[in-house]
Amino acid sequence: MTQDVHFFSRLTIEQVEEGHELAPKFDEHGLIACVTTSASTGEVLMLGYMNAEALKKTILTGEAHYWSRSRQMLWHKGATSGLVQKVKELRIDDDQDAIWLRVDIPGDASCHVGYRSCFYRSIPTGDEGAAGELHFEEQAKAFDPKKIYGDAPNPTKL
Amino acid sequence: MTQDVHFFSRLTIEQVEEGHELAPKFDEHGLIACVTTSASTGEVLMLGYMNAEALKKTILTGEAHYWSRSRQMLWHKGATSGLVQKVKELRIDDDQDAIWLRVDIPGDASCHVGYRSCFYRSIPTGDEGAAGELHFEEQAKAFDPKKIYGDAPNPTKL
Repeated sequence: MTQDVHFFSRLTIEQVEEGHELAPKFDEHGLIACVTTSASTGEVLMLGYMNAEALKKTILTGEAHYWSRSRQMLWHKGATSGLVQKVKELRIDDDQDAIWLRVDIPGDASCHVGYRSCFYRSIPTGDEGAAGELHFEEQAKAFDPKKIYGDAPNPTKL
Repeated sequence: MTQDVHFFSRLTIEQVEEGHELAPKFDEHGLIACVTTSASTGEVLMLGYMNAEALKKTILTGEAHYWSRSRQMLWHKGATSGLVQKVKELRIDDDQDAIWLRVDIPGDASCHVGYRSCFYRSIPTGDEGAAGELHFEEQAKAFDPKKIYGDAPNPTKL
């Protein structure tokens, strides 16, 4: 990547909230949270994190890049699985500490467990939620993760 | 709150990813990320954080509660503004370290700056994005934040 993306310094609240200058705030680990939705269905697919390099690569290439916290490396989503996320729109929030990507993906499936969305389970609200029992909202996997990911280590940490 | 919500211990990856047991993972600050979308429009409204108490209150009351990192206190969203978020659906992700709320809010507006969504600005992708210039995607504020929030301190931190 020869080209860079300019990040402005954060000087005033008015600049950050009401201005036209990209001045992202990274946390103490150098990361910014990113929610990714399907541009076609609107469904929330995943919640990931980006470091400065991942955000810049996402902006310049139009393909979603994240920082993998479990593998501690830059992560071009889809490089292994083929499920590359093409960015239709990239938004940033009021205080510029969160990103929203609207993406197109083959099959609208993105979860490493094999479901469309990483959020395939729900928790009931009210008294019914007290037992801590999850309900499955996707009835079947969208793909076979073993075929897509092979022997790649599972990113989930206990 | 006399009632409690049961959180299971995280024992195996299969339990966490494929099971029916709510076993949320909180980070080193005791927080879990939460993306909140409008149940009617599908728009991403905000990205917030919950501690264990906020998650339990959200489950039991069906109204969104967060942990305010800027004010370091439990935050019943809408207690000041009246823009309470009624939870239509509460989901959790594969490794149980992120929450997705689909909510109903009066006017579908939730941002403290006065816009519908906190994500009211976009960043163009490709060469055009290199300058770090933001584009406004909402043309006008949905409400006057001074009228709704009065003299409450601005939560944005530089």
